[in-house]
Amino acid sequence: MALTDARFLKACRREPVDATPVWFMRQAGRYLPEYRAIRARHTMLEAINTPALAAEITLQPLARFPLDAAIIFSDILLPLIGMGLKLDFVAGEGPQIENPLRAPADIDRLGAPPAEVTVPNTLAAIRLAAAELTPRGIPLIGFAGAPFTLASYAIEGGGSKSYARTKALMYTEPAAWTRLMTKLVTVVGDVLLQQAQAGAAALQVFDSWVGTLGVEDYVRYVQPHNRQLYQKLAAAGAPVINFSTGAGAYLEEVAACGGDVVGVDWRLPLDRAWEKIGLERAIQGNLEPAALLAPWRELKPRVANILRRAGGRPGHIFNLGHGLLPETPVENVRAVADFVHEQTVRAPA
Amino acid sequence: MALTDARFLKACRREPVDATPVWFMRQAGRYLPEYRAIRARHTMLEAINTPALAAEITLQPLARFPLDAAIIFSDILLPLIGMGLKLDFVAGEGPQIENPLRAPADIDRLGAPPAEVTVPNTLAAIRLAAAELTPRGIPLIGFAGAPFTLASYAIEGGGSKSYARTKALMYTEPAAWTRLMTKLVTVVGDVLLQQAQAGAAALQVFDSWVGTLGVEDYVRYVQPHNRQLYQKLAAAGAPVINFSTGAGAYLEEVAACGGDVVGVDWRLPLDRAWEKIGLERAIQGNLEPAALLAPWRELKPRVANILRRAGGRPGHIFNLGHGLLPETPVENVRAVADFVHEQTVRAPA
Repeated sequence: MALTDARFLKACRREPVDATPVWFMRQAGRYLPEYRAIRARHTMLEAINTPALAAEITLQPLARFPLDAAIIFSDILLPLIGMGLKLDFVAGEGPQIENPLRAPADIDRLGAPPAEVTVPNTLAAIRLAAAELTPRGIPLIGFAGAPFTLASYAIEGGGSKSYARTKALMYTEPAAWTRLMTKLVTVVGDVLLQQAQAGAAALQVFDSWVGTLGVEDYVRYVQPHNRQLYQKLAAAGAPVINFSTGAGAYLEEVAACGGDVVGVDWRLPLDRAWEKIGLERAIQGNLEPAALLAPWRELKPRVANILRRAGGRPGHIFNLGHGLLPETPVENVRAVADFVHEQTVRAPA
Repeated sequence: MALTDARFLKACRREPVDATPVWFMRQAGRYLPEYRAIRARHTMLEAINTPALAAEITLQPLARFPLDAAIIFSDILLPLIGMGLKLDFVAGEGPQIENPLRAPADIDRLGAPPAEVTVPNTLAAIRLAAAELTPRGIPLIGFAGAPFTLASYAIEGGGSKSYARTKALMYTEPAAWTRLMTKLVTVVGDVLLQQAQAGAAALQVFDSWVGTLGVEDYVRYVQPHNRQLYQKLAAAGAPVINFSTGAGAYLEEVAACGGDVVGVDWRLPLDRAWEKIGLERAIQGNLEPAALLAPWRELKPRVANILRRAGGRPGHIFNLGHGLLPETPVENVRAVADFVHEQTVRAPA
């Protein structure tokens, strides 16, 4: 089967499919014993930066489950290193930046190098993984962090509850903020375009922290830059998934940035979210990740509910509303994937 | 002036006011040097549990700014101690629970003692503070955490990003979840009713973490218990403010729980939020707390924008969308309070 006929890519284009495609954010991750075995011997950065390892991790969930797409193993923060930030993944603490951005001068010192500089090993890993997957008709998804999410991490230097430093800089130094977002659009745009060149058949943009903003700030400080990014990505020749978390209060404005598919979190039922983003867009989502911690008798009706709300309409890609939790039982991942396929199977068109 | 004629209480009842009332969540807090001076000598629990200190801290912002209400200095988690949880406020880490709830048996061991057991010192502090404030015509607000927020803290034992343990228990042990929420409604209800008895002229319920839930889970696992709580509070003879954060995607369902006033966070513009909760309800909010870190030229139009969106309609209480940040410059708090009053002053009715 030609890759372009894969049901995941058809759903991105809102074409009828033989069954609803399913993949899971963070499907290559800590809930898998074979992933933990690799990470016991390698740090996060080693695993990401060794193409053979990153490709192996990418393929792990595909060896277990009948998933309709793979996603390259990497991290959204990786490009920040190439831009000049000293980032490390501290075990148990998450990523930390030694020299976060605190003033306009810090922003002006940041580089905006091309993807061969920021993510060379991810591009190599994509080539390896795509060589395995393409003959099997399985699309590989490339990804990057959205400009706001990367900016907030670069400014806070780590996790944050209030994002006070990010917002203070945004409000107080709007020109520097624009320069930062412009650099990030350049970097992220090239990362994604080169991932497509290397063999990614679809691209996902993660705006994981943007839900901390009110809609007026979103429209003023984020939307113009995201629009630029999605315009740029039209040249990729691959469908683009626009995914934000915590922005359910203003999904319309998120969807307006662009992307062929809008990824939605679990806070709104799928049909309510789909109406907000517009029925002429494809949608990806939106099972509560913690639902996979529940027994099947509780999990099953939740999956069925999402499929019912999707209503068999073309353009639904089944996924979670966020990444798989490390505590997730492996058998629940399989059960969900099988159930989605079984419940949505259609006679060939 | 009789306390009942205070403009804050009038606004809670949606009566016309001479100027829009203003107070700030966490107005008695770390941004104030006089608060930090007390906390340099006393732990959080000492400050809360020494009525004279708690009353002094409560009055601190009123000595500086023309605020229309005070809020008693305490903490939403305090009642958990009286219920049997070993809670401490660890400097720099936030509150931590040594024996979090992990199984139904843990829930069944929890007590549901009355407010004289769970918050005796807060009740005493309310009596002291109200004795100062009532002659000045300034209402004092009592408060408590909403059942879900307290349950999630009791289960996680500290902060959480995914609330995986809370959700897993909720999904897997629904009967135990109901028993936990029922106990919390009993405890929180009594805390609030006794605060009103002690002199609180209004009551606020904080559902700070509920935005982690999807709306269907909210309706199933939270709404019935919140409704019970608000029904119980009708006996308080004081207006009740229903405040949640991060639930902007389903404000309608939050408002449907009850409360005279609905407090909204900063994610939606005030008018858009007001339409969702219904124009027949009073509304409190909703300045982005980080806006107070910006210079006045940036802060002022944001305050003006909220007042414009409130449209002079009776029933608006100006506040932030969340608590004041510790980094907030004191002069910005004064400037916002003054500006709200100046811009909304009306000829006496």
